[in-house]
Amino acid sequence: MNNEVPEAYVPQTPESLPALLGSVAVIRDLLGGTPDRWAVEEVGDGNLNLVFKVRGPAGGVAVKQALPYVRLVGESWSLPLTRAHFEHLALVRQARHAPGLTPTVLHYDADMALIVMELLEPHIIMRHGMIDGVVYPMFAEALSTFAAATLFHTSDLAMAAADKKELVADFAGNTALCGITEDLIFTEPYMVAENNRWTSPQLDGLAASIRADSDLKVAVSRLKVTFMSSAQAMIHGDLHTGSIMVTQTDTRIIDPEFAFVGPMGFDTGAVIANLLLNYFSQIGHESTPGARDAYRNWVLDSVEEFWNGFRSRFLALWRREGRGDAYPAVLFDDAVARVHLASEQERYMAELFRDTLGFAAAKMIRRILGLAHNIDLENIADADVRAAAESRALKMARALMTAPDSFPSIEAVTDAARRWNATTVI
Amino acid sequence: MNNEVPEAYVPQTPESLPALLGSVAVIRDLLGGTPDRWAVEEVGDGNLNLVFKVRGPAGGVAVKQALPYVRLVGESWSLPLTRAHFEHLALVRQARHAPGLTPTVLHYDADMALIVMELLEPHIIMRHGMIDGVVYPMFAEALSTFAAATLFHTSDLAMAAADKKELVADFAGNTALCGITEDLIFTEPYMVAENNRWTSPQLDGLAASIRADSDLKVAVSRLKVTFMSSAQAMIHGDLHTGSIMVTQTDTRIIDPEFAFVGPMGFDTGAVIANLLLNYFSQIGHESTPGARDAYRNWVLDSVEEFWNGFRSRFLALWRREGRGDAYPAVLFDDAVARVHLASEQERYMAELFRDTLGFAAAKMIRRILGLAHNIDLENIADADVRAAAESRALKMARALMTAPDSFPSIEAVTDAARRWNATTVI
Repeated sequence: MNNEVPEAYVPQTPESLPALLGSVAVIRDLLGGTPDRWAVEEVGDGNLNLVFKVRGPAGGVAVKQALPYVRLVGESWSLPLTRAHFEHLALVRQARHAPGLTPTVLHYDADMALIVMELLEPHIIMRHGMIDGVVYPMFAEALSTFAAATLFHTSDLAMAAADKKELVADFAGNTALCGITEDLIFTEPYMVAENNRWTSPQLDGLAASIRADSDLKVAVSRLKVTFMSSAQAMIHGDLHTGSIMVTQTDTRIIDPEFAFVGPMGFDTGAVIANLLLNYFSQIGHESTPGARDAYRNWVLDSVEEFWNGFRSRFLALWRREGRGDAYPAVLFDDAVARVHLASEQERYMAELFRDTLGFAAAKMIRRILGLAHNIDLENIADADVRAAAESRALKMARALMTAPDSFPSIEAVTDAARRWNATTVI
Repeated sequence: MNNEVPEAYVPQTPESLPALLGSVAVIRDLLGGTPDRWAVEEVGDGNLNLVFKVRGPAGGVAVKQALPYVRLVGESWSLPLTRAHFEHLALVRQARHAPGLTPTVLHYDADMALIVMELLEPHIIMRHGMIDGVVYPMFAEALSTFAAATLFHTSDLAMAAADKKELVADFAGNTALCGITEDLIFTEPYMVAENNRWTSPQLDGLAASIRADSDLKVAVSRLKVTFMSSAQAMIHGDLHTGSIMVTQTDTRIIDPEFAFVGPMGFDTGAVIANLLLNYFSQIGHESTPGARDAYRNWVLDSVEEFWNGFRSRFLALWRREGRGDAYPAVLFDDAVARVHLASEQERYMAELFRDTLGFAAAKMIRRILGLAHNIDLENIADADVRAAAESRALKMARALMTAPDSFPSIEAVTDAARRWNATTVI
């Protein structure tokens, strides 16, 4: 893993950025005027990077620059700049398979670990909207389209085996970011670790009981080994509602720096986990008890619509464009064989659903007991209310992870969420 | 995939080889005398390469050189020389994990795609010995040790995640040889393909029924997708009895040019498939009916001893050296957790056993209906006898592949082999 900082690398500031961008013709043209007239603001609220909005007389761009360390933690935790390379690679490929659902890449500067993209306006981070109770009627369709297209087209179902192996190799160097996932999602929440934090003392007992739950530790370890060794497709790797920018009519998926060739269910699980966390958090955001009930229903409807939409779109792609080396069309070219293939496709999706639930559970638990939390829950000022929401989410996650077979359908998942949400805790 | 032939590459002949080897000090010293006194014979009987034995006054070496095409087929089927690179990489790593069970590598010449190894004498290819009914009392122990050590130590159970990803990338370029497996093992035997051949007309009906068997085609496709996307461990990739050199007391595994990071069960399945094929072939090699019964029992005993030995060795390594990022030790550091981990390890081995049976079945079928056959069966001159043996093997393979759950243990497999062998066919 290349952890070096190129000699030319300089972390950008609002002062330095215009000169750098001014040297790129396409950006100069897009912004208009001269660099000294461009307005720059640093807006990064993520855990890892610098993000700038740059506006000129004719238009704007967004600029994302990797830092050689984890911004959330500080310079003591170094992180390779090469993640910008992997993010760029993923953005380009996602745009090919899911056109219109990612920000357009305008320029990539490898030395600066910097990507210049289309400025998405008036988009906001979906997580913020969901905390405010905003309905996004187009989101589930867009996100299920994105997931189905990017996962299907980078899998063995669509690709020639040699091309797929090249894709695996292209992303094999993204070990540092995979390592963050391996540690922070699949390991640390289940042990005593310095990075962990939770709403204390309210959740102390539950956190301890999770650290002592061997069934759960076996289950999360099984998910971890799948994450490490199942090269199913190029996954986004961090597909939560903080990686989605929305308006009422447009949805864009950003920030694929965790991308690599891994298990599909990690992406679909991330979506469902983050919707469920928001669902459980609503108790902390409603003005009066029950005021957000309609919103809660929309969130769970979105969970169903996302999975069912993903499932049917993925299967449709497989039927229509299944020209990869897996399940080769030449073996299934008569009516009888096609019936058997269709039933195998159902089995394949059922297995993917099972993976999805496990990964969703892992994502929920890490956001409550691990290092990086979600503001859906973190923004709840009353610690008792927050802990109640978190404990419902934790208990549901534990059931999803240790007994996935009790959830035969996505509707069984949303039903269970409603039941957990109605429980008295802790 | 680099399919180029380096400018310096020259296919060697018994005449040219001494001069080439004479330029390498370690080989000159080992052979003794001067190159003009060295005796060279070309002994390659495989499908892909040139193999030479070189002897001098002081000792001998074996030399394997890749050809830029498939030797079995001819220059029309090109095959990259880079396979020598992957073979060399695998040999070095196998020697580290399973010392004494591979030929020692003395020299590697990348431009010539040529590996110089220890000359194994008086070893013979195990397949030849098994056709002659020779018992190898040490073989099952050695082979199960080799498989357990090489698979365990290159898996996530033993490796740090970042090192494992590097290993995946190291072998990702071996696409041409993986492609041979994908086509010849997992696809062509189940369709009408120019490469296929079988004992005809005796097996015409059975071959047709396999091409029409949708359950089987689904099952083999599921195995194929596992082969293409399950990066469990560095596998040998071609672990049949033609890749094993033996004496009564020594066992060496050769020819890992198909190596890559794939599913462990592909190696363990290859071993079992080739033992079973030999078992079914004995009817064609015994002087009088039943004359080889004791040998048949030894072959099936070896199947059991191999799997049971592999299983217990693999588990012992996991318990003793499970310091990889999968199932991290830190999560299982108390007595209760260790009990749960032990039961998870049993489940892991049961799943690996299931994979093993499926891959074994695929290997059996391809050797009877596909391009490359085994001389265990091919050497049976009487086509009716050969077809009878082949049809028993095919039918057993079909059961293994479509109903692996009816074989809960390796003893259930050997029992079934005895029953199939007693059936009247075709």
